[in-house]
Amino acid sequence: MSVMQEISSNVKNMKQLEYSLLAKWTKQIKEELRQGVKKPYKDVIDVSWGDPHRAGVKPLTFVRQVLAACLYPQLMDSDKLPVDVRQRAQRLLGKCAGGSVGSYTETPGIPNIVQRVSEFITRRDGGVPSNPKNIYISPGSQWALVNILNVLVNPEVSPRTGVLAPVPCHATTILSIMRQGAAVIPYYLSEEHGWALQVEELHRALELAKGVCSPVALYVINPGNPSGLVQSKKSMQDVIQFVSEKRLFLLADEVYQDCVFGENTKFVSYKRVLAEMGPPLSETVELASFHSASKGFMGECGLRGGYVELVNLDPAVMKCIYSLFSSDTCAPVLGQIALDLMTHPPQQGDPSYPLYHQEREQIRATVSQNVKKACEVLNSLPGFSCQPVEGGAFAFPRVYLPPKAVQKAKEEGMQPDTFYCIRLLEEAGVLTSPGYEYGQKEGTYHIRFCIMTHQEVMDELLRRLSNFHPKFMKDFS
Amino acid sequence: MSVMQEISSNVKNMKQLEYSLLAKWTKQIKEELRQGVKKPYKDVIDVSWGDPHRAGVKPLTFVRQVLAACLYPQLMDSDKLPVDVRQRAQRLLGKCAGGSVGSYTETPGIPNIVQRVSEFITRRDGGVPSNPKNIYISPGSQWALVNILNVLVNPEVSPRTGVLAPVPCHATTILSIMRQGAAVIPYYLSEEHGWALQVEELHRALELAKGVCSPVALYVINPGNPSGLVQSKKSMQDVIQFVSEKRLFLLADEVYQDCVFGENTKFVSYKRVLAEMGPPLSETVELASFHSASKGFMGECGLRGGYVELVNLDPAVMKCIYSLFSSDTCAPVLGQIALDLMTHPPQQGDPSYPLYHQEREQIRATVSQNVKKACEVLNSLPGFSCQPVEGGAFAFPRVYLPPKAVQKAKEEGMQPDTFYCIRLLEEAGVLTSPGYEYGQKEGTYHIRFCIMTHQEVMDELLRRLSNFHPKFMKDFS
Repeated sequence: MSVMQEISSNVKNMKQLEYSLLAKWTKQIKEELRQGVKKPYKDVIDVSWGDPHRAGVKPLTFVRQVLAACLYPQLMDSDKLPVDVRQRAQRLLGKCAGGSVGSYTETPGIPNIVQRVSEFITRRDGGVPSNPKNIYISPGSQWALVNILNVLVNPEVSPRTGVLAPVPCHATTILSIMRQGAAVIPYYLSEEHGWALQVEELHRALELAKGVCSPVALYVINPGNPSGLVQSKKSMQDVIQFVSEKRLFLLADEVYQDCVFGENTKFVSYKRVLAEMGPPLSETVELASFHSASKGFMGECGLRGGYVELVNLDPAVMKCIYSLFSSDTCAPVLGQIALDLMTHPPQQGDPSYPLYHQEREQIRATVSQNVKKACEVLNSLPGFSCQPVEGGAFAFPRVYLPPKAVQKAKEEGMQPDTFYCIRLLEEAGVLTSPGYEYGQKEGTYHIRFCIMTHQEVMDELLRRLSNFHPKFMKDFS
Repeated sequence: MSVMQEISSNVKNMKQLEYSLLAKWTKQIKEELRQGVKKPYKDVIDVSWGDPHRAGVKPLTFVRQVLAACLYPQLMDSDKLPVDVRQRAQRLLGKCAGGSVGSYTETPGIPNIVQRVSEFITRRDGGVPSNPKNIYISPGSQWALVNILNVLVNPEVSPRTGVLAPVPCHATTILSIMRQGAAVIPYYLSEEHGWALQVEELHRALELAKGVCSPVALYVINPGNPSGLVQSKKSMQDVIQFVSEKRLFLLADEVYQDCVFGENTKFVSYKRVLAEMGPPLSETVELASFHSASKGFMGECGLRGGYVELVNLDPAVMKCIYSLFSSDTCAPVLGQIALDLMTHPPQQGDPSYPLYHQEREQIRATVSQNVKKACEVLNSLPGFSCQPVEGGAFAFPRVYLPPKAVQKAKEEGMQPDTFYCIRLLEEAGVLTSPGYEYGQKEGTYHIRFCIMTHQEVMDELLRRLSNFHPKFMKDFS
């Protein structure tokens, strides 16, 4: 007996990530290193995740102090913790049922935290109003996206629902779209233009989808992952016009909004651009904007706290969304608290401000430097080219693999850039991920790595890459 | 423009919980109390959730100390925390990438914690082996259930997939089944027999489903919610025989396994009973068993940590399950750590043991007393009858509403037991939930309330109920 024959083809066809191959390899190498096997490196640098703490970035002291005090309130009895930490923890516990972070919360999150998230959004968007009723806190933004997709994608219709998504795009979103039974309609970002999102390409992609599927939504991620692009206001206006004309729902993944490094580059939210375009657009375009405590300088991926803000949705749809969220009880309370801390960090004059400010600025400076160094090194290596990384958490350079390397990869039954990543891992102890996982133009190859690392980690990574790469190119020339 | 017309009927038809009506009412009453409006009570007792901390149960000190130390490792520098707390925190941080609970983990959870969960299962089941590869940690057990349902329910087949579920049953599971597009096939627990699960009833239910849907799974919850039943071994064997004959997947929700109060009542897992039945059953019946850090004496609902163990699944199905779990990254790290602490509590001789033991035994004694008192009081009130509560977190007494009350409820457009709950809330400040939400035999009415409360909370609750109920019965006689 097996349920296999019953399984929905949506689930059956889910792409198996090649990552697991690299993960297995890494595990083995680490085990060998532990056993004292000699290798040209002492440890594996893992920059395959968008995970700052994994890559050596330290958590923010203020954040961890408040969370610890919420968990173990006896800590507030001593004066070892700054008074604003104790006050914040006290206030937050007062909002938890039974005064405990161990209680369930309302489905959209603790009302007071939802309110404060909405205040943050209003402030961020220069006064464009945000209604707490339109905000849902979730265990990470990706999870909220799945719920919204669940509403948008109707598995019963034929031809099936389609969702426009960029190439390249991080894999979890693509998996989530497929999981709902929707077709992914790929639109290509223009690498030669710094991974720009060009509206002509959206038209082309939509045209191709005609008859194949029934498009309902456009997914954009800004700042980009893996692209590193920060969209211009003009490009965002074009996107908004496009979704309005084509009657598409706009899914705006804005989890990297705090990660902007480019000079003269600024993050502006889709909600703000939409509001500034005025009626009828500002009153009709349906938008979901996602944000998270995992990204940015906090980097608290493990707490699982994100949120979605919904704009211009039909009240009947909002009811469905409530039902969907309520079937999973609530987001982790400590993730919710992390959002309170992210949206309301210490202010000048608060006892925790000096240390908070110093830690944040140090991370900011390190990442800016990392980005600069990474681009310089990559663009100096023959066979590499890297577009400017204006935001996000990743570099996504193109690697021009020699035909012999491509051939060798095919013989070994793997994608050429996976082959490159495996060599880089084996020979230099650097774990990156292959462009293949994110989608890329036929015949082009890339690698992705996290640039939110400790400075020494980035220096060592670039040193290893610089040694490895010319050797690889020579081996297959 | 609206996506409403596109929404899948599964989502559109999701039952809107009547709870929200009671929740709104509660909010208003609390606000009035805050403003000094005179009422016959000073506060609202909220026992509508299965949420011990909300109902005044204190968190376990050991658990909170380890979690706080993991978040803010500086706490380990002082000797204020017991040495076994510091050692545990140190050990757990050593298993986190970058030594931080802020990092993502592997999809099924931190390997070492998964390993320890599997050791706990083996110990619990008297040596029946458990393979860590079959365990997935998730943000709460409900969430794992949704993923497993996602694999079992094929939205493309006609007639649609069916899942057998008990009446009464807690509402989130029913919502989850509907959310996947499956039909719920109700089977009735026998109230007159202490809510026993009778195999004849399973046959009846399945027979009725013929031609209507295509049954693939049976969901059981043991100990029961809201029923309070702890299944006998004989009943479990019958269930296993039944699913084997009918080629159904067995979904065993065992989140209340630590909450058993009946004398001579013992929890035995479905996995153990299955193993003891021997081949061919033990090698063929497909089983998913769920557990959680939210329930039991820990009661850490807000951390969102649960797991599922899968037995006898086809490797191809296991691959699909991996893909599904991986599209949501990972469970909250602190929820994962809570599972480590739940499955490996302090042992005799450990510095934390005396306090841990004392706290746990106090909760256990309180809950046992609560159950005893509640059943006594309920069964002494004319118009109430309560089956023995052997386990779980709830009492689910039947209330015999007078015809005039039923009539009045209908006039007000609500379910009779919702009407009763609203009156109880308004007049006595006690928030329970109506039997209607869980399903019940036509013409019978129930209320559900949490029995995992502080002792004083239960005493006050029963006092208020005893005053309110005769008055209500008289008003509608």
